[in-house]
Amino acid sequence: MARGGDRAALRRALLAPRSVALVGVSDDVRKTGARPLQYLRRAGWAGTVYPVNPNRPLVQGERAWPSVEALPEVPDHAYVLAGPDAAVEVTRECARLGVEVVTIMADGFVGPDPASVARARALQDIVAAHPVRVVGPSSLGVVNVHERLTLTANAAFGEPDLPEGGVFVASHSGSVIGALVSRGKEMGVGFAGLVSTGGEVDLSLGEICLSTLDDPGVEGYALFLESLAGAASLREFAAAAAERGKPVLAYKLGRSDAGAELSVSHTGALAGDDAVASAFLADIGIGRVDSFEALLEGQQLVRSVPLRPRAARAPRVGVVTTTGGGGAMAVDRLAVAGAVPQRPSEETRRALAERGIPTDHGTLVDLTLAGTRYEVMSAALEVMVGAPEFDVVVAVPGSSARFHPDLAVRPIADRAHTGAPLAAFVVPEAPEALRLLRSAGVSAFRTPESCADAIVATFSRRAPRPTGSRAPAAVPGLPGAAGVLDEVASYAVLDAVGVPHAPVTLLAPGDDVPDVAGPSVVKAVSAQLPHKSDAGAVVLDVRDADGVRRAVADIGAALAATAPDVAPETFMVAPMVRGLAEVLVGYRRDPDAGPIIVLAAGGVLAELYRDRSVRTAPVDLATAEEMVQEVVALRALAGYRGGPRGDLPALARAVVGLSQLAASPRIVEAEANPVMVLADGRGVVAVDALVRIEEER
Amino acid sequence: MARGGDRAALRRALLAPRSVALVGVSDDVRKTGARPLQYLRRAGWAGTVYPVNPNRPLVQGERAWPSVEALPEVPDHAYVLAGPDAAVEVTRECARLGVEVVTIMADGFVGPDPASVARARALQDIVAAHPVRVVGPSSLGVVNVHERLTLTANAAFGEPDLPEGGVFVASHSGSVIGALVSRGKEMGVGFAGLVSTGGEVDLSLGEICLSTLDDPGVEGYALFLESLAGAASLREFAAAAAERGKPVLAYKLGRSDAGAELSVSHTGALAGDDAVASAFLADIGIGRVDSFEALLEGQQLVRSVPLRPRAARAPRVGVVTTTGGGGAMAVDRLAVAGAVPQRPSEETRRALAERGIPTDHGTLVDLTLAGTRYEVMSAALEVMVGAPEFDVVVAVPGSSARFHPDLAVRPIADRAHTGAPLAAFVVPEAPEALRLLRSAGVSAFRTPESCADAIVATFSRRAPRPTGSRAPAAVPGLPGAAGVLDEVASYAVLDAVGVPHAPVTLLAPGDDVPDVAGPSVVKAVSAQLPHKSDAGAVVLDVRDADGVRRAVADIGAALAATAPDVAPETFMVAPMVRGLAEVLVGYRRDPDAGPIIVLAAGGVLAELYRDRSVRTAPVDLATAEEMVQEVVALRALAGYRGGPRGDLPALARAVVGLSQLAASPRIVEAEANPVMVLADGRGVVAVDALVRIEEER
Repeated sequence: MARGGDRAALRRALLAPRSVALVGVSDDVRKTGARPLQYLRRAGWAGTVYPVNPNRPLVQGERAWPSVEALPEVPDHAYVLAGPDAAVEVTRECARLGVEVVTIMADGFVGPDPASVARARALQDIVAAHPVRVVGPSSLGVVNVHERLTLTANAAFGEPDLPEGGVFVASHSGSVIGALVSRGKEMGVGFAGLVSTGGEVDLSLGEICLSTLDDPGVEGYALFLESLAGAASLREFAAAAAERGKPVLAYKLGRSDAGAELSVSHTGALAGDDAVASAFLADIGIGRVDSFEALLEGQQLVRSVPLRPRAARAPRVGVVTTTGGGGAMAVDRLAVAGAVPQRPSEETRRALAERGIPTDHGTLVDLTLAGTRYEVMSAALEVMVGAPEFDVVVAVPGSSARFHPDLAVRPIADRAHTGAPLAAFVVPEAPEALRLLRSAGVSAFRTPESCADAIVATFSRRAPRPTGSRAPAAVPGLPGAAGVLDEVASYAVLDAVGVPHAPVTLLAPGDDVPDVAGPSVVKAVSAQLPHKSDAGAVVLDVRDADGVRRAVADIGAALAATAPDVAPETFMVAPMVRGLAEVLVGYRRDPDAGPIIVLAAGGVLAELYRDRSVRTAPVDLATAEEMVQEVVALRALAGYRGGPRGDLPALARAVVGLSQLAASPRIVEAEANPVMVLADGRGVVAVDALVRIEEER
Repeated sequence: MARGGDRAALRRALLAPRSVALVGVSDDVRKTGARPLQYLRRAGWAGTVYPVNPNRPLVQGERAWPSVEALPEVPDHAYVLAGPDAAVEVTRECARLGVEVVTIMADGFVGPDPASVARARALQDIVAAHPVRVVGPSSLGVVNVHERLTLTANAAFGEPDLPEGGVFVASHSGSVIGALVSRGKEMGVGFAGLVSTGGEVDLSLGEICLSTLDDPGVEGYALFLESLAGAASLREFAAAAAERGKPVLAYKLGRSDAGAELSVSHTGALAGDDAVASAFLADIGIGRVDSFEALLEGQQLVRSVPLRPRAARAPRVGVVTTTGGGGAMAVDRLAVAGAVPQRPSEETRRALAERGIPTDHGTLVDLTLAGTRYEVMSAALEVMVGAPEFDVVVAVPGSSARFHPDLAVRPIADRAHTGAPLAAFVVPEAPEALRLLRSAGVSAFRTPESCADAIVATFSRRAPRPTGSRAPAAVPGLPGAAGVLDEVASYAVLDAVGVPHAPVTLLAPGDDVPDVAGPSVVKAVSAQLPHKSDAGAVVLDVRDADGVRRAVADIGAALAATAPDVAPETFMVAPMVRGLAEVLVGYRRDPDAGPIIVLAAGGVLAELYRDRSVRTAPVDLATAEEMVQEVVALRALAGYRGGPRGDLPALARAVVGLSQLAASPRIVEAEANPVMVLADGRGVVAVDALVRIEEER
């Protein structure tokens, strides 16, 4: 099976094999390596299991073969439970014999030590030379719940009655698949399959999920990500999932990692790894939840909300409750999480009143006065899921949910899928009510926090944009070598994508020194001075030709002290530009997420506040306008407290322009910083720029 | 029993009465008003219950009396289940007869309608005229779990086997006490008592809690707050609880309320109601949790962390795990919540290695290699709870917790209270493990989110400061009438508390116009111009005596247009002061929280970023220094990226000074804005100020 080959064939060998070999399976049932055989037998999987153990003719009472080669047939899938060195040799043997998928449990392939490096390289070589596909290393295995294939060493799969359903789990962490299956069982959320992807020497999480997309038993995905490694295949999977209307939620570690990268520009540090991850996931249509429980609790909700080209950044939520305190908790948390608790319209209030449900002018539709009865909750929901002012309706049943779910819980279940998406936060401990709702396809939440989290994550998703349609931006005259461009050459890159910058007069040796029309700035032009001000290579507020001459001399003297290796011959003179605000517009190719564009407030305070908006590049004008709205500092230029308005439309156009560098493969990073935002109608002007390119190929 | 009287007597009548009357109790068991009788009988409470119903000789098969007066004795406590008008009359009757506590279930006492207003006033009059104490209105009742007193209409108390333990719940919301008791039962968290305080026409939540403090069965408190109404009694309770070492956690609604108050100064809008609430709770020693589950899950943890005069704003947390993915979730969330996931010291790593536990240089102590065994987890915890670098240790057991709690869960329980505070996040669904840990006194969390939340809330508490020791700040020469002071009079207030301001030269009619030493500012002096710049009453950059004359004329002309009612005769000249940063230092008396002090970054951006620190006033120097550290913008003056250092010690002293206005009862609000922060060693200078006072009494 070649890489990128038949997805159905990969899925069959991976998740629906007819035969599996358990290589290195242990006879000692206390050992992790004994579990897959135990669990497959306990689950009653119908396929053929071949225990393989070179040292024993019997393992756990079953016949064992001495090697994969000795088996009576070539198994579809081999799970290698041996140590790392043996795992390499077994994989080689499997590859030679034509085993389609090998899953490796052993650790010992990651790390700086020579043995790990050598093993990882050996696996890569085997994969490159054969059609075999490898899951892992460090994989706790794969599970197909519908087929009772528990090909895993995770102890959670030793119990009977695994919860069956439509959720497919793919996780970088092996232990988490066990945590999710045990929690899902209690919650009444069922699984189609679960895969621990481990070290991803070959098959990535995205590729594995992609292979399952045509499985009608899979209705949605729950991903546990430790990083964005393999982002390209994740993007491909997400696009295909969006086409098929199969939604994806993800929980990703690393939110706390400051992730300030070493970078010649500030774009890297300002964006931060985790903001890039959030932007990437939203842009490819994956809802990123912030809380572990929402990953499963939100599954039914996300299935009921189709992807749209624009995210509803602040979904409008109707809240109906039989308990004032619980309803208030929901409203409060929704607003904290960034949703809009939406007041019912006058028309909605009239319709409720006609059904005997009085409301006040508040956000909450409180049924306390009308009474906790089936008819009351049902009538309220009938009105609310049909009301246009709500993107989603949250029902909050109180104490009655615990012993009398017929009163306020069953009507929620019965109104599922009859209008706007519906979810529930159940205030008391009421596991039966939660299961009743979930089995009816209603996301039911144990806490107001996970409820609000899942709603915001669900609506944060954007339909993935096609990536094949980029027109290459023509950036002429780039030097052939890799490196940083000087300011003048960097401006040429801005010119190519239509980002305005200050007009520049060049001053080479022997040129006449120009007079200046107004306060100007003189700078050395050199690719070796990315931080010109720090080096003394910038003189501000120059007023005349004499001033220019003095500035050139002063810069030469300063550089002799700060950067003796740099002896610039060319200088530039540009008018000083004062704007209403300074911002940074930065583009870079992220090693995982690919091209990204950042708009950030300028200056030291912006760094401290981390006030920025990130998207995958390129962006269209509407997206750039969203980005402008997301930068808090720019609200000061949008008429805040009667202050002057800045030319934010021009800023959005500049963001669109710089983002088009995504079509210029040699541009690694391009930053216009600062960009001065002028008064409304007067545009924006970059007054410094820095571009880094890679070598011409 | 007089107000402020004997706490023990109040507690007895409220929570341990010998006899209760159920006034208006319903015979129809489907009705809410029928429940207290059902529940008291079901629970087997040993006291005397008197059903009172004027319309029926029998209620639920029991003899009923026609009125409270007709009872054979005066009951200790009456729960009034009748409608609002009847409730007033019954309360009057009870008060006259000498019933000690009356709890009122009815709504209908809040709202702008005349009937509600009249009822509320009638209750207040009854309370004022008699020793009776009233709980409610809108109270779902009171529960003493140890005594089986289920004097409540909340349906959650109809079930048997209420969880008994040390947590006392007081809640503004009646439905929430039911949600908490059902959740506690499932969790293995037990209760001493629960009270729904409702509308608090008389007894406040703080006063009720205060009455229970000497009950040895109460080990800690869980509060559900809808507002800070009654904050004075909450403060009194919290101080007494701190003295007795009984910890308090609170969940408070209203985090999303922008709460920008109408105020002549900016201090109100900048502080925001909810930031005031957080500061108030932390300052009185109450840990405010952000998630509903943490309110109960954190109870054992908070008992193990004594209050200290300084909060550990970023507690250092050691994390030990048997599952890499789960441990990483805990670390990630702790850092997001503001805790510090702490790397083990070299000494700790050595001690672990001696016990066969290898560690790498990361934050996590991962026991995967050493194995999931009792001895391994126990040895790791032995080392970690004794290591000085951890304020708290979190153990994260994986899949084994579900069916083999002896391996990694029991050792956590066995290490409870042997060193540093200990908590656990249990990754799989494992209710037995959670209960085992909780019964051993270890806070066990179902999610990484509530774990991190409870830890941060627990360590955010500060030992309450004595409030009786304030030296009154002598503020001489205040006018007698209420109102806003002009800038010069406001500076006099700053002088009284030692907050530096710009030197002022006054210019009254007929005075010689002064020359100026450097760039100066000319302003009109008037209490009627709180926003002088907007009115055109400020002229900047005046350079000489002629300039002063022109400025005075210009201001007169501007005011003729903008504020024709204001004809100031006095002007002031002050040097223009440029600082490294502008900040706002504001003091005000909050109607609930009392005196508060705010330090905020200056300017429009600071408002947009809501970048400020709030405390109850007065503060000491160490607290003011904490506040300086909390304002993000001020990091730019603390040596960030090699920038110039500002005189932050002087700023902290100015904060201390302004906060001392807490001892000046006539000062309602005092704001120095902007305050210029000069270079290190050069101090701070207020260049405008606004003080509002109330009438002299």
